[in-house]
Amino acid sequence: MTTSTVPPVPAVPTVPTSRLRIALAQLNTSVGDIDGNCDKIVDWTGRAAAAGADIVAFPEMAVVGYQVDDLALRKSFVRASRTALDALAGRLAEAGHGDVVAVVGYLDGSEATERRSGRPPGSPQDAMAVLHRGRVIVRSTKHHLPNYGVFDEFRYFVPGDTLPVVRVRGVDVAIAICEDLWQDGGPVSAARDARAGFLLSINASPYELDKDDVRLELVRRRAAEAGCALAYVNQVGGQDELVFDGDSVVVRADGEIIARGGQFTEELITFDVDAARADGLPPAGPVADGITVDHVLVSDGPAPEREPIAAPISERVSDEAEIWGALVLGLRDYVRKNGFRSVVIALSGGIDSALSTAIACDAIGPENVYCYSMPSKYSSEHSKGDAAEMARRTGVHFGTVPIEPMVRAFLDTVGESVQQLTGVAEENLQARVRGTTLMALSNQSGHLVLANGNKSELAVGYSTLYGDAVGGYAPLKDLFKVRVWELARWRNKAARERGEVPPIPENSIAKAPSAELRPGQLDTDSLPDYPMLDRLLDLYVEQDQGRDALIAAGFDEEVVDRTLRLVDLAEYKRRQYPPGTKITGKAFGRDRRLPITNAWRERSLRP
Amino acid sequence: MTTSTVPPVPAVPTVPTSRLRIALAQLNTSVGDIDGNCDKIVDWTGRAAAAGADIVAFPEMAVVGYQVDDLALRKSFVRASRTALDALAGRLAEAGHGDVVAVVGYLDGSEATERRSGRPPGSPQDAMAVLHRGRVIVRSTKHHLPNYGVFDEFRYFVPGDTLPVVRVRGVDVAIAICEDLWQDGGPVSAARDARAGFLLSINASPYELDKDDVRLELVRRRAAEAGCALAYVNQVGGQDELVFDGDSVVVRADGEIIARGGQFTEELITFDVDAARADGLPPAGPVADGITVDHVLVSDGPAPEREPIAAPISERVSDEAEIWGALVLGLRDYVRKNGFRSVVIALSGGIDSALSTAIACDAIGPENVYCYSMPSKYSSEHSKGDAAEMARRTGVHFGTVPIEPMVRAFLDTVGESVQQLTGVAEENLQARVRGTTLMALSNQSGHLVLANGNKSELAVGYSTLYGDAVGGYAPLKDLFKVRVWELARWRNKAARERGEVPPIPENSIAKAPSAELRPGQLDTDSLPDYPMLDRLLDLYVEQDQGRDALIAAGFDEEVVDRTLRLVDLAEYKRRQYPPGTKITGKAFGRDRRLPITNAWRERSLRP
Repeated sequence: MTTSTVPPVPAVPTVPTSRLRIALAQLNTSVGDIDGNCDKIVDWTGRAAAAGADIVAFPEMAVVGYQVDDLALRKSFVRASRTALDALAGRLAEAGHGDVVAVVGYLDGSEATERRSGRPPGSPQDAMAVLHRGRVIVRSTKHHLPNYGVFDEFRYFVPGDTLPVVRVRGVDVAIAICEDLWQDGGPVSAARDARAGFLLSINASPYELDKDDVRLELVRRRAAEAGCALAYVNQVGGQDELVFDGDSVVVRADGEIIARGGQFTEELITFDVDAARADGLPPAGPVADGITVDHVLVSDGPAPEREPIAAPISERVSDEAEIWGALVLGLRDYVRKNGFRSVVIALSGGIDSALSTAIACDAIGPENVYCYSMPSKYSSEHSKGDAAEMARRTGVHFGTVPIEPMVRAFLDTVGESVQQLTGVAEENLQARVRGTTLMALSNQSGHLVLANGNKSELAVGYSTLYGDAVGGYAPLKDLFKVRVWELARWRNKAARERGEVPPIPENSIAKAPSAELRPGQLDTDSLPDYPMLDRLLDLYVEQDQGRDALIAAGFDEEVVDRTLRLVDLAEYKRRQYPPGTKITGKAFGRDRRLPITNAWRERSLRP
Repeated sequence: MTTSTVPPVPAVPTVPTSRLRIALAQLNTSVGDIDGNCDKIVDWTGRAAAAGADIVAFPEMAVVGYQVDDLALRKSFVRASRTALDALAGRLAEAGHGDVVAVVGYLDGSEATERRSGRPPGSPQDAMAVLHRGRVIVRSTKHHLPNYGVFDEFRYFVPGDTLPVVRVRGVDVAIAICEDLWQDGGPVSAARDARAGFLLSINASPYELDKDDVRLELVRRRAAEAGCALAYVNQVGGQDELVFDGDSVVVRADGEIIARGGQFTEELITFDVDAARADGLPPAGPVADGITVDHVLVSDGPAPEREPIAAPISERVSDEAEIWGALVLGLRDYVRKNGFRSVVIALSGGIDSALSTAIACDAIGPENVYCYSMPSKYSSEHSKGDAAEMARRTGVHFGTVPIEPMVRAFLDTVGESVQQLTGVAEENLQARVRGTTLMALSNQSGHLVLANGNKSELAVGYSTLYGDAVGGYAPLKDLFKVRVWELARWRNKAARERGEVPPIPENSIAKAPSAELRPGQLDTDSLPDYPMLDRLLDLYVEQDQGRDALIAAGFDEEVVDRTLRLVDLAEYKRRQYPPGTKITGKAFGRDRRLPITNAWRERSLRP
């Protein structure tokens, strides 16, 4: 997306303006690492000061990271956040950056213990403070609390009802937190009523495919509603299932993009903006939605003349490149922030483990990726060959562990002492011997085990608990199978375009999927073909459509019933699966919550 | 607890009364089994009719079960609930029970799709309907939505703001739903303002140790506030981590208990109550907290003279008996409602697997319990002997699977192809071979695997992922180790008092805990002794106390730091553990939610 798509600029009356310089610190913080996050805030405020910024803005909850979950209910944690925030003001001044107005998200709360309806004990707050010359000059609390999808903020926070407005170089800058921008009314309307000259929004907004477009439209609409330019700063980085993409953006009231950050990269986005100078004070009483303006003066005179700065406007990338960026950063941060350095992967020669390996190579380098082929007597020659070829192309560590001796020992010993193992018991046994082998290598060498399952498999439970489901992270967890193939082709094409060797053997992409747990087994023995399965799953899982709607959409009744039954019965398996990077609206993680014990079937209602 | 603890009865002015007969159906419903639940409602309404009841009350959400989680956001599910509720009115009349006023909890919602701040799409409602003579005569929606601990009702429901008041035999009966009783103001105050002659509260209130005492105090206080007798009906039964204990209770306005159901049993609690006859209509406009009274007339004349009925007042039991009841019902329902018939347990000779086995025997009968001793070369003779003795005493199926051949195959094969497995890798390997063996037997014979870990172990991560953590359910998951011993002694004592053989060998209770994964290993090599560890965990986990408070409480600094570090780092392992019956305020289930990637350590803040 480029600025050429911006609508025509409407005529605006000439008002006195001041040219503010603002820096958005699109940072990768770590949940719970208060010391490290504060060090980063000091460091990046220094960079903003060096660029001559009047204001530097950090993401929502930058001091503690996001999401902190039940840590918000732990008093010692809230106290640590408050203490660190207060110390930060002094640290910035000592470092010589006290003149920069720093807008910092943090966790606040009280020592009170009483529980009232709808108020968590200690009344934690998703808060923001403005730091200047060694002091906290104003604080505020998020007004709208999201409580859907991956968000549970009614569980953790109490809402605020003030809008901080800081006058900097004569411009009244209003500050809102995240969801406050996504909901109608509230702080955006209050900013308009307060006649703010600029609106700053600090965020921790998780990535979803196409969300950058949604976000831009939203930011444009809110800028128009507020009647002033708007800057949106977001964090980047992986946090368990979530990955934050950055995509910080600044638009004028007419919607024109002034600056835009990239996705999945840490950046300081510095820009100049001509903002209306304030004329008098904002209203003293409540404005929109009962919100009161909390006005603070930093400096009233206009900004000095200075050399204009060139603001970055990052280009948008393809869907595949965007998803790839999410997968790579999601995995890299999970490995790094959990204290691992290397990963171990079961490389089967199939497409899923090949794509996992390619992602891992891009995330932490092939020198930190350990792949093992673990053939059984049912493994095909092409499987073993394709696994070795993948390793050769990428340069990962590679070894082979035949599983037949272990499988034989189980079959013989259990067979002699209790009963013969046959059918699914024998099939799953092979997967579990592989899982146990991976965990032994992980325990011995400290690698994080990656699980290679994709979303289509997980949806229908086509995996072995404690077998191929073993691992600490599952990079493909939120990718339907058809998307796995698309990304493999895209990654190979990108390599060719850069003159590099495509990492994934063509044969791993082209061959028919098979678990190879019995002779001649194919996925299609048990499942509809993947293009149809994925469409069905998209409707049932992502869009929550019922059985009748699926049949009305033209799917075969028998296929619908069989698939829905598989999905409904696989909840426990999915629950036990490792976390993975969330790409869509309803990944099988914290945003889709179903009981395990659940007799509901779409067809169970009496006619 | 007996009625002798009731405070003295205050003098009340004499008003005309009517003697109502009410039946509370303390039912075990199943989540999602709409057909089965409705069949039960018809059946139990018939029993109430046979007992001459004017009113029968079913628990909150009886039509769909509780908790339904994200099923509330699925339109086809909401539609099924609404359809079933409407049909139920007709079914009751057809069955000849139309004259009984039936109060039934169900899930309601609309077909609307718009998303507004704080309103889930489709606006689902935790609703209640009163059925009479084939029609729904009034509906209402829960007013206070709990959103803490195991409850996420802001995610699922929109609140209601009416109080239904049904005049039956001249008495105005007000009806509230669950949390409406736990919060100040709201429906209870509205019932008082509506001058209700009786208050009925329908509930799905999960068990917690000592909650019966809390509940009784609450019910008494609310009865006093409402100024009339109050009946509280609760469901029973297991639902994933939760178990509902029943404990339905009826008190007069002065606090005296009129009737009380048992815990963990399905019961129809029928009682007579002399309630004030209504004098005129309740106020037409809003009463307390903006709630409007929705008044419906069923019958205005007083109740006929009839033979008084003897209401049950169940005695309270000891803490151990209460916990045992929760564990047994929690496991039985998890097995049954998930379609299993039998369980398989690794019986080591230690206390944890012995207690699991005893619970399983009480839950589903020893004939459905399959135990296996899986000795390694490190297993002691007394372990093998104690396991066999436990099996002999209880009559469970018993077999032995030596794990040495499988362990040897792993050590040799992985050692030859990649690297030697030593230390923790070799220890965990033994646990994983056992886990794989159990799963093979489960796959072959359809048993549900039970994991035997207790809360102390889980807290500090003293277990092997995919090893002893394998299973579909973990009965001891929310029991600290000291409690495990207490329950074992209690269960044996109870057996002796009944003249039965105590199920658990004394040696399993008496010996020092050991994982037996290396020669001479004891739990105390890695952990503080259990009485101290459990006290520390109680403060840190249950009460969310910080490091400084623990040291101030007298715990050794080194022990505190070591233990807290273990707890903080074990989040992923706990997340992957099977669900288990929740006994306390913060089981390691859905009510304690922490990020996996989390750098926060209690000691991490700079001094």
